[in-house]
Amino acid sequence: MQRSYFFTLILIWLAKPAFSQQAVVDAIYSNALKSVVAYEQLSVLCATTEGRIAGSPQAAAAVEYTKQLMEQMDLDSVYLQEVIVPNWKRGEPEQARLISRVLGNQELSVTALGLSAGTGPQGLIAPVLEVQSLEELEQLGEAAVKGKIVFFNRAVNQDHYNTFQGYSGAVDQRVRGPLTAAKLGAVAALVRSVTTASHDYPHTGVTRFDADGRNIPALAVSPQGADLLGQALKTDPDLSLYLRNTSHRLPDAVSYNVIGEIRGTDYPDQIITVGGHLDAWDNSQGAHDNGGGCVQSIDVLRIFHELNIQPKRTVRAVMFMDEEIMQTGGNAYADSATAAGEKHYFAIESDRGVFTPRGFSIDAEGERLEALLSIKPYFEAYGMHEFVKGGSGVDIRPLKNYYDMAQAGLLTDSQRYFDLHHAASDTFEKINRRELNLGTAAMAAFIYLIDHLDTLGTE
Amino acid sequence: MQRSYFFTLILIWLAKPAFSQQAVVDAIYSNALKSVVAYEQLSVLCATTEGRIAGSPQAAAAVEYTKQLMEQMDLDSVYLQEVIVPNWKRGEPEQARLISRVLGNQELSVTALGLSAGTGPQGLIAPVLEVQSLEELEQLGEAAVKGKIVFFNRAVNQDHYNTFQGYSGAVDQRVRGPLTAAKLGAVAALVRSVTTASHDYPHTGVTRFDADGRNIPALAVSPQGADLLGQALKTDPDLSLYLRNTSHRLPDAVSYNVIGEIRGTDYPDQIITVGGHLDAWDNSQGAHDNGGGCVQSIDVLRIFHELNIQPKRTVRAVMFMDEEIMQTGGNAYADSATAAGEKHYFAIESDRGVFTPRGFSIDAEGERLEALLSIKPYFEAYGMHEFVKGGSGVDIRPLKNYYDMAQAGLLTDSQRYFDLHHAASDTFEKINRRELNLGTAAMAAFIYLIDHLDTLGTE
Repeated sequence: MQRSYFFTLILIWLAKPAFSQQAVVDAIYSNALKSVVAYEQLSVLCATTEGRIAGSPQAAAAVEYTKQLMEQMDLDSVYLQEVIVPNWKRGEPEQARLISRVLGNQELSVTALGLSAGTGPQGLIAPVLEVQSLEELEQLGEAAVKGKIVFFNRAVNQDHYNTFQGYSGAVDQRVRGPLTAAKLGAVAALVRSVTTASHDYPHTGVTRFDADGRNIPALAVSPQGADLLGQALKTDPDLSLYLRNTSHRLPDAVSYNVIGEIRGTDYPDQIITVGGHLDAWDNSQGAHDNGGGCVQSIDVLRIFHELNIQPKRTVRAVMFMDEEIMQTGGNAYADSATAAGEKHYFAIESDRGVFTPRGFSIDAEGERLEALLSIKPYFEAYGMHEFVKGGSGVDIRPLKNYYDMAQAGLLTDSQRYFDLHHAASDTFEKINRRELNLGTAAMAAFIYLIDHLDTLGTE
Repeated sequence: MQRSYFFTLILIWLAKPAFSQQAVVDAIYSNALKSVVAYEQLSVLCATTEGRIAGSPQAAAAVEYTKQLMEQMDLDSVYLQEVIVPNWKRGEPEQARLISRVLGNQELSVTALGLSAGTGPQGLIAPVLEVQSLEELEQLGEAAVKGKIVFFNRAVNQDHYNTFQGYSGAVDQRVRGPLTAAKLGAVAALVRSVTTASHDYPHTGVTRFDADGRNIPALAVSPQGADLLGQALKTDPDLSLYLRNTSHRLPDAVSYNVIGEIRGTDYPDQIITVGGHLDAWDNSQGAHDNGGGCVQSIDVLRIFHELNIQPKRTVRAVMFMDEEIMQTGGNAYADSATAAGEKHYFAIESDRGVFTPRGFSIDAEGERLEALLSIKPYFEAYGMHEFVKGGSGVDIRPLKNYYDMAQAGLLTDSQRYFDLHHAASDTFEKINRRELNLGTAAMAAFIYLIDHLDTLGTE
């Protein structure tokens, strides 16, 4: 080989780091698109730990199952991290009955909201006050509210292309509505399910009460039930509602975040976190919310292993406990990280439904944001066009209380998510293997690329 | 109002046509995202005309139903266009049984391919020759093939992000495999279903035979059945297969394209076609393929009506008959257009599954292509990032035999499509209302915008 030719080759090689990184990205996608591993893991998780809300036996089983999965993977470390979790129990199936002299009686599909008080075993009967917003309720005031069941009936605005916008515009009724009603003397609250669907499944979710303990029964009603009740109130404003809910809160319980990691070659003390949350609402299999995010996080490690990608930094898959009720898992993770003096380089979460990935929501500023946005071209061929500044994920956000770090959230196609979010319709059969694996590939490739950026800094 | 201020306002208004057109696009999306009309129409179409392959009573019912839908819409014109269609009948449920001295007998899930010959009522038994490609089969030659059932077992390559690429890389086995096998003396052909799924549904589709009538029984086997047979052949290469198929072809029948139109205000003689195909495989409801494309096309007219958008050109919704077997509907439409001296400005088809729209495949060249690509920014907010040069749709393509015109196809998220394409799993419950309506909005907005481009020319 002539010397000048040899040097030309070296120069070409030096000038083409981007090409070789694209080849790694492509290899990650190719591996993911052919794999059935995460899909089968999720199938088992959904079938064997359905209803795994924090504090439940199913949550404990999910901890054990995902720990075992990672222990079989020849990782550098697999361990549990203790979390003290709230322990709210649904009790017997809820009942809601519309009682009207004009219209007769009619059962409604309801579900207790997380942290709801019970009605007592006898249930309660009261007249209904329908409102469209918290503002309307506050304007009506205590005289109108006292002794009533407040019915929040504002539907999700379907105008928005991104359904998270519609959801955000309606979810205040669920999160803050019951407390607002309680403060004005309501005996219970009934909230229209925060969903894009028009079916008869009720969608649950947490509701917030003050520490002063002014807690009332708070239930979600299916969209069909809400429509029925809204119509009935037009005909008979004097109708009553019977509600029965035996949910109750037990003393806090011990649970765990489940963690597995591949140690970094160059900067093993710098952590890259990839996670989802392991708990799911007790009325569902939690396939999209968020078993999918968990098996994707584990699968990022599998792909690194199989492709012999040795990250410079430590890559850690975390299955967070208790995202749904008190976010104690995310908080425990951040508290533990800072207590142990860990350095956190980057974190990413998948918790927006296991649908076709569309891009990343990037929580960073200035040069870091620019650096992360610069990665976009690697994903052009994989339909990832939306690299936007925005929030990351509920479980990793607490890290930002301690670390000046960049984070991201996987953005997925949002059209179907709120049809099944927090409802019994969130089942494994709604998962598509390729969409699941594309999410894994996107996160694995993103982590691989930012591990080579070296420009995000660490605390 | 001061005169200079007035003129300034006028100038601002003149400089902002793009703004007002964006407002119309946004109004179209808003209308579509809230609507339940097309969704309910598709529900009825799927429930009442399941299996509406050309020549069937269900196809006739679908013609009548969609005609009635449009007659109730106060359009300028609704009519049927006669199409002479092939009339292939499946017969009794197909049977396929693996017969092995080593492994015992095993039933396989199969379905006859469209235009397949029958086996006769007794069925047939023959040894099996497995091949991975038509090239391999031709190299093996007549000596190896004669008297055998040729089993094409090449799976869809899952590597590709766009599943249409994987499909295209495998579908030659179904379309040309049986004829190739027949020419080499095979007694039948069994083709691995061309699908991304790994379930036990067989996927049908048309297969082509020469006019010389060398027609053999040709069936598709489910992916699970194909895996099973492939494995069995490794253990017992001498196994036989029993096949029974009573499909047969009757004399051609009369059917129809169903057409509705809004007459243009300025150039009523220039036609913009928006269509889908009304026929569906006889083993499915044809929700995605392609009842969805039909109700979307009708819904484009509904939206124009409701928003009082008066197109300059005539906008015509066409439900094409017989896309699946001989494409006689698309050919009849083009032949009729040219015979009547019509002018065709533009045509668009939705036939890639009713999933979240991702962009448009644009079949145009030079300045026309540039003009159509220039529309892209109007769709940025609606997740439509893929404006690419490519094919349009099977039913509108014949227009290009006569017209030098621009065409387009609606591109949708492809991940799930080939899980259900041409299989019994293509049911209405797989349709998401918002995804359906986003496709309608995309086509309505695209048509509205190009109607105002005035740069595509007409023949």
